[in-house]
Amino acid sequence: MASLPPLTESLIPFLDPYLPRINPTAVLDKAETDDSLPFITLTFAQSIDSRISSSPGARTSISHLETKTMTHYLRSKHDAILIGIGTFLADDPILNCRFKINHDDSSHLIRPVIIDPTFKLGFYYEKSKLRQAFLESKGLPPIVLVRLSEIRSNPEIKSFCTLHKIMLLPIETEPASEFRWLKVFKELKKRHIKSIMVEGGASVINSLLLARDPSSGKSLINSLIITIGPVFLGKSGVEVSPCKELRLTDVSWWTGVQDSVICSHLK
Amino acid sequence: MASLPPLTESLIPFLDPYLPRINPTAVLDKAETDDSLPFITLTFAQSIDSRISSSPGARTSISHLETKTMTHYLRSKHDAILIGIGTFLADDPILNCRFKINHDDSSHLIRPVIIDPTFKLGFYYEKSKLRQAFLESKGLPPIVLVRLSEIRSNPEIKSFCTLHKIMLLPIETEPASEFRWLKVFKELKKRHIKSIMVEGGASVINSLLLARDPSSGKSLINSLIITIGPVFLGKSGVEVSPCKELRLTDVSWWTGVQDSVICSHLK
Repeated sequence: MASLPPLTESLIPFLDPYLPRINPTAVLDKAETDDSLPFITLTFAQSIDSRISSSPGARTSISHLETKTMTHYLRSKHDAILIGIGTFLADDPILNCRFKINHDDSSHLIRPVIIDPTFKLGFYYEKSKLRQAFLESKGLPPIVLVRLSEIRSNPEIKSFCTLHKIMLLPIETEPASEFRWLKVFKELKKRHIKSIMVEGGASVINSLLLARDPSSGKSLINSLIITIGPVFLGKSGVEVSPCKELRLTDVSWWTGVQDSVICSHLK
Repeated sequence: MASLPPLTESLIPFLDPYLPRINPTAVLDKAETDDSLPFITLTFAQSIDSRISSSPGARTSISHLETKTMTHYLRSKHDAILIGIGTFLADDPILNCRFKINHDDSSHLIRPVIIDPTFKLGFYYEKSKLRQAFLESKGLPPIVLVRLSEIRSNPEIKSFCTLHKIMLLPIETEPASEFRWLKVFKELKKRHIKSIMVEGGASVINSLLLARDPSSGKSLINSLIITIGPVFLGKSGVEVSPCKELRLTDVSWWTGVQDSVICSHLK
């Protein structure tokens, strides 16, 4: 793996107010009680016309070198990265953190989480870069969220996961727009995951953008960080757009030479 | 009409490299020869999810006060504003320029151009703010592009236009994606329109984004200026996204408190 270019310095004060606070006394915090939720950062790169890839399954370059290191910096601030299985199959991502916090050789180990109701991962995992990174001690094996009925009817899923040190989490699936994010995040919190960076793909993003905690009515997203690259990917691209209007608040913009980044909270 | 807030100063050096050069010796320029094309600036405000309104025909607020004056500043640099009839019917726009160049009371008079193949304008013009502005000497009557067959079969179109000092330009219409922009721009140039700010709506934008001069292969758009407001308008919004991928070049970003603006050329 090639080393990352240095992080553009101006990104640090821009991003930090939107990142989970790593607080040594946090164990006393309300945020640390058992039934609280993890800190959720939703982040992705999109084109001007809000496409995250040029067609379904296509790996598309949108952002530039100037924001590439940012992704790894953001990962260094979270316990887990969450993606959908579609993104895993399209990108074969390593899902590790290559940002070096202390300029020594050690990177933060981040836990990959993959939403994969029918366990498609089983067929692709052994040849994946994700597994390779784990074998080389450059990443962790994933937590995989699989439909309960799928686990029950295919006992080999459990043995596959045990063999590969994959943590299996059963989920009850719903249509994407009603995906039970609250339950998923609570389950992950029980596994000591206090902060999650959700990276895609489109169905994960569109569904999470609208997810709310029914008790407070608040968005489950604590921070939204979007990189916009100067390209139109066009109508056949894979689109991010929620089913309802959504106003952003506490907005802050950063601009580079090619890309811009918006940080915000959700109303 | 309320007066505009002052233009944010940093917008001037940001925008000016993308604006038509008003050159007193231009009469000698190649750009001024008869068969050259007018300078085309495509500009609009969109949501993060590239919607220009929340539903067809709905007037939607996307950009904020900080970029509102920018629109009038841009208008002060162009001879004409071009929109489709759909935008005219949805917004009842005044289509004038309220930016005061010399801090005296005079504003630049800009010519509205409306693409209206079936002359829907005839039914709405008399009560429009556009006509009202003309009657109060705050704007010019429009040039209206109407399908030739429509003009031939409805002789009252001509007399209506004569009565209201509307200039009628016949066009041969095509499907939106193949709209004959080159011909339209050449016709407008013959009417001494040397620079046009194209403002919308979505079908005009999506079609113009892909329009090229067949002789040079170059985009007909000289500058693309997009304001992005911090909102998702959602799937039922009216979307800007061309049919093909389109890379931007010579990119420059400006950010305000709420909005960002991207200026660019097209590859």
